[in-house]
Amino acid sequence: MKKVAILMGSDSDFPVVSDALAQLKAFDIPFEARVISAHRTPYDAEQFAKNAKDNGFGVIIAAAGKAAHLAGVLAAYTTLPVIGLPIKSSTMDGLDSLLSIVQMPDGIPVATVAIAGAKNAAILAAQILGVGDEAIASKLAKFKDDMAEKVRAKDKELQTKIASL
Amino acid sequence: MKKVAILMGSDSDFPVVSDALAQLKAFDIPFEARVISAHRTPYDAEQFAKNAKDNGFGVIIAAAGKAAHLAGVLAAYTTLPVIGLPIKSSTMDGLDSLLSIVQMPDGIPVATVAIAGAKNAAILAAQILGVGDEAIASKLAKFKDDMAEKVRAKDKELQTKIASL
Amino acid sequence: MKKVAILMGSDSDFPVVSDALAQLKAFDIPFEARVISAHRTPYDAEQFAKNAKDNGFGVIIAAAGKAAHLAGVLAAYTTLPVIGLPIKSSTMDGLDSLLSIVQMPDGIPVATVAIAGAKNAAILAAQILGVGDEAIASKLAKFKDDMAEKVRAKDKELQTKIASL
Amino acid sequence: MKKVAILMGSDSDFPVVSDALAQLKAFDIPFEARVISAHRTPYDAEQFAKNAKDNGFGVIIAAAGKAAHLAGVLAAYTTLPVIGLPIKSSTMDGLDSLLSIVQMPDGIPVATVAIAGAKNAAILAAQILGVGDEAIASKLAKFKDDMAEKVRAKDKELQTKIASL
Amino acid sequence: MKKVAILMGSDSDFPVVSDALAQLKAFDIPFEARVISAHRTPYDAEQFAKNAKDNGFGVIIAAAGKAAHLAGVLAAYTTLPVIGLPIKSSTMDGLDSLLSIVQMPDGIPVATVAIAGAKNAAILAAQILGVGDEAIASKLAKFKDDMAEKVRAKDKELQTKIASL
Amino acid sequence: MKKVAILMGSDSDFPVVSDALAQLKAFDIPFEARVISAHRTPYDAEQFAKNAKDNGFGVIIAAAGKAAHLAGVLAAYTTLPVIGLPIKSSTMDGLDSLLSIVQMPDGIPVATVAIAGAKNAAILAAQILGVGDEAIASKLAKFKDDMAEKVRAKDKELQTKIASL
Amino acid sequence: MKKVAILMGSDSDFPVVSDALAQLKAFDIPFEARVISAHRTPYDAEQFAKNAKDNGFGVIIAAAGKAAHLAGVLAAYTTLPVIGLPIKSSTMDGLDSLLSIVQMPDGIPVATVAIAGAKNAAILAAQILGVGDEAIASKLAKFKDDMAEKVRAKDKELQTKIASL
Amino acid sequence: MKKVAILMGSDSDFPVVSDALAQLKAFDIPFEARVISAHRTPYDAEQFAKNAKDNGFGVIIAAAGKAAHLAGVLAAYTTLPVIGLPIKSSTMDGLDSLLSIVQMPDGIPVATVAIAGAKNAAILAAQILGVGDEAIASKLAKFKDDMAEKVRAKDKELQTKIASL
Repeated sequence: MKKVAILMGSDSDFPVVSDALAQLKAFDIPFEARVISAHRTPYDAEQFAKNAKDNGFGVIIAAAGKAAHLAGVLAAYTTLPVIGLPIKSSTMDGLDSLLSIVQMPDGIPVATVAIAGAKNAAILAAQILGVGDEAIASKLAKFKDDMAEKVRAKDKELQTKIASL
Repeated sequence: MKKVAILMGSDSDFPVVSDALAQLKAFDIPFEARVISAHRTPYDAEQFAKNAKDNGFGVIIAAAGKAAHLAGVLAAYTTLPVIGLPIKSSTMDGLDSLLSIVQMPDGIPVATVAIAGAKNAAILAAQILGVGDEAIASKLAKFKDDMAEKVRAKDKELQTKIASL
Repeated sequence: MKKVAILMGSDSDFPVVSDALAQLKAFDIPFEARVISAHRTPYDAEQFAKNAKDNGFGVIIAAAGKAAHLAGVLAAYTTLPVIGLPIKSSTMDGLDSLLSIVQMPDGIPVATVAIAGAKNAAILAAQILGVGDEAIASKLAKFKDDMAEKVRAKDKELQTKIASL
Repeated sequence: MKKVAILMGSDSDFPVVSDALAQLKAFDIPFEARVISAHRTPYDAEQFAKNAKDNGFGVIIAAAGKAAHLAGVLAAYTTLPVIGLPIKSSTMDGLDSLLSIVQMPDGIPVATVAIAGAKNAAILAAQILGVGDEAIASKLAKFKDDMAEKVRAKDKELQTKIASL
Repeated sequence: MKKVAILMGSDSDFPVVSDALAQLKAFDIPFEARVISAHRTPYDAEQFAKNAKDNGFGVIIAAAGKAAHLAGVLAAYTTLPVIGLPIKSSTMDGLDSLLSIVQMPDGIPVATVAIAGAKNAAILAAQILGVGDEAIASKLAKFKDDMAEKVRAKDKELQTKIASL
Repeated sequence: MKKVAILMGSDSDFPVVSDALAQLKAFDIPFEARVISAHRTPYDAEQFAKNAKDNGFGVIIAAAGKAAHLAGVLAAYTTLPVIGLPIKSSTMDGLDSLLSIVQMPDGIPVATVAIAGAKNAAILAAQILGVGDEAIASKLAKFKDDMAEKVRAKDKELQTKIASL
Repeated sequence: MKKVAILMGSDSDFPVVSDALAQLKAFDIPFEARVISAHRTPYDAEQFAKNAKDNGFGVIIAAAGKAAHLAGVLAAYTTLPVIGLPIKSSTMDGLDSLLSIVQMPDGIPVATVAIAGAKNAAILAAQILGVGDEAIASKLAKFKDDMAEKVRAKDKELQTKIASL
Repeated sequence: MKKVAILMGSDSDFPVVSDALAQLKAFDIPFEARVISAHRTPYDAEQFAKNAKDNGFGVIIAAAGKAAHLAGVLAAYTTLPVIGLPIKSSTMDGLDSLLSIVQMPDGIPVATVAIAGAKNAAILAAQILGVGDEAIASKLAKFKDDMAEKVRAKDKELQTKIASL
């Protein structure tokens, strides 16, 4: 099975990114996580992206904040789909990260998820691998059903809460 | 080979979306294009998404503007990857479309590309299909090489232009 | 008397939404509150909206955050007025929710109130029901008078406070 | 039948507002349109709002741009539902109008529609009157069906267009 | 001497507005402070503005948040200069208040100061009264000199702090 | 009578600023207009501001775009009220000019009007001079009455237009 | 003398960038201009930046739009100062380019100028080279004087224009 | 060796600015830090900028928040490169400071770094001095290598952390 790579521009992104790791674990999808910076270790980023396909990766998730170039830099060096995960920093409420990741010029797309949407980055990675892997597709279908059930359970709890108001 | 679905919320989105069709054609990837509105034909959207996998689609591209719900509504009914393509309307410069598409809540990702980034939506669809299809992966690698050559040709033209300044 | 439906996309919206419930109680307007997600339980949302009129509802309030599609999805399936209540999430300060709710395309309006304006959503629901119900209209008139008196009382308190500066 | 009032802050708003008049005509809903400015004729605005209910109005639509106070000023003087229609001016792309209208403080809601969403303002007015008027409700249901058919017709046209690409 | 009126839309604005009162006291400029809401006590606002000139006021400061209409509503009913003081609420970081106050249409200006700039609202009021009152003008000149001295004192402190680094 | 100074950072601001000149002429208020740049002729700006009071000016209007420092720089050197007029440039839709002018730090206020609100800058200047000058105050009252009449005339025209629809 | 490198991500940036070339010519500062894309020719960007110092460059200007990564990518591979020039694209009014360029993480600065501020990019490059080159410093001083004279000439023209109003 | 000047508009900026001082110390680059306000001590700012070159400075860093004019005011009076450091204040999340600093008009550039990017301001100053000083250039190269090593160390730590999940 193809692996998912999860790169973060700084280890300070880990508290957000860890939700992606947990979700991939829940799907039994193999992954590797790395701290690689587009700006501080650009050569490592280049090498990682160039070799990602040969190294057995099927999708790359890139998490970064502020002028978040990591996803774009990786996408420049690979034809694998790259998922961009904008991290909110202490200023600009994540808008800088979002625009830096999503507004890619023609030719080099980045599949962007919500600001701090680490869990969704992992689900999207699973969906991408699931296009050619029925086992993952089944897990995703079950995951969707479970989510619906959780919402319905919350709805029941709400009825109790309101009855007691 | 799995097909790409390209849905647009309104036929007025076609001038932008047509770049995606052209790019898929260039990659010889089969596709179907539809006008389906999350708000005006919600049942059609639901039915399309529910049956997309069984109907041979591997990826869905959803283009919409303003309060752009189409991608999210489709993603709610399928486990296929859904690519969101924000269309700029006459107000808010595309920011409304972008945020309405990218800021999806946990559980239901949408792979968002740049505002009006129709070509990138198609390339991302190709990358997703290419994870399990070496023929597409090869086309993407060649496409990348061609792009680089075009940039280098433009660089040469620039030298001539500057020399004559 | 027609009921008000209050749907929230997640039970985490309840602390904000509860102000709407309290205000409807204060007006003695019957209501039902539900946790229904446009993305995680889309079919439930569809069914709720389709049957809302027959089930005795006159207005629907839909609270959601981020890419807040709930109000639009409900409005797609009903001709009842739908009030959209944008919930502020941890990023983008509510702007994403607001634009996702208010910028509806032609044909499917959503009556949007302020970010986190749960109390106003309830008052607007009362005003809508009050168009055809003089009892509610009278309560609204009294509510308006009471508000004015409260402001005047605060003004008096201020005079005391300033006198003692 | 109750009438709809459509107030605009300036006659320069008429080209946008006229879509609302046309839609109300299409629904056979009686209306009156007025140029009344919250800032230049504040007393007229006050008088209009105070007497609107007694004068047979059921809903008020208020269109204004920039620091758009008209909807809020009217809502301050009536208990009728007030629909706010933000007009885009030559700066700020309509964001100023939108925020000035939608962000109303607790107690005085304004039912805000999209920037330049005149047609939706009229449809929302119809929906509000339709809560207590089955004839209007029926027209809205038919309008919804017609919209769906138009989308489906556009979808068919698209198939022809694509076949000829 | 003409008085300054300081109106706030809600007593919750007082903690910010109190800086304006303190500054006016420091200048020995007489003032009255009121809680008057454009939306909840619109008639009081109208009456206050209409009579302000006759009641001995020379300038009006109006503080409000969110869809902040107070300054504009007062300006509609008086020819006195009205200073708008945007209050930051719990969403939108003050941008809604600022745009609602500053973007006034032609004919009815509001002299807007910074978000939460209560002190500056008072200084501006003093500057306006000082145009025709040399005593106030002298106090402003002294205030300016004192400010410069305070900055220079802080600069000296900084040198000590740096020397000890 | 005290004069109004109207400074613009660039002669390219003149087409907008000329509305202010026309309005002052209409009020018979003497004025001088100057092209003085905070960045390109900073010394001239300093000298102008320092001597403005002694040179018979009562108010200064400063028009500038982009990082619009002119109003702030003048306010730093005078105790006269300074009105800031944000000019929209080719990027950022005037938001940069607005924030650069209005968000002044404590101690140095700038009375900011709407983006491109040249007419309002002039009216505000007249209101400020009118605090101590009953002739100007009377003109402002008449101007207000005339504006109301114009709105009412437009309202009448609208009735004719609608009757003929 | 050290050269200035001017890189643009696309030849479509040339109409804006050409102002920088003209300004450098006016200062007699040698330069080279290149079309190199961070995304389409990333290896070329890397090589250019790595060798820029040895190739006699003293400063690099990088112009790019949308998710503008070029300046950051170059800065990652060189210790020369990199000037970022945000290009406005057809959406988001240049805000995406600006934030993508200016919000660089700690360790890798980019010296950002205004959106479309090509002339200023060249002047800043001259200022940087001028720190160690008195000839350039003298040209900059003269350039500053000339600018002031031009403003003063415009001021005189304005007096004529106003006199004839 | 040329010195770096670090000016801050208020001593409240010191906690952010101190990172710049620390970084310059780490590079052994001489500096002076001052509290000088463009608005409260404009004459001091003018004098500082006019004499900076003669006083041995090679670069000026100017830190300020809100309507941040300090960098622009200094740049108006010197031909030295001026680095603008936007400080985030309690409203607008730093966007006001950023736009007030970066959007300088043609002729007077300010080299702007990220909001609160004090460390980068210092590194940029070092890069500018390093153009003509190989010792500084060597330190920058070593600093870059050290940064890369730190990222790689963090990457190793991450592997341990993940292994233990």
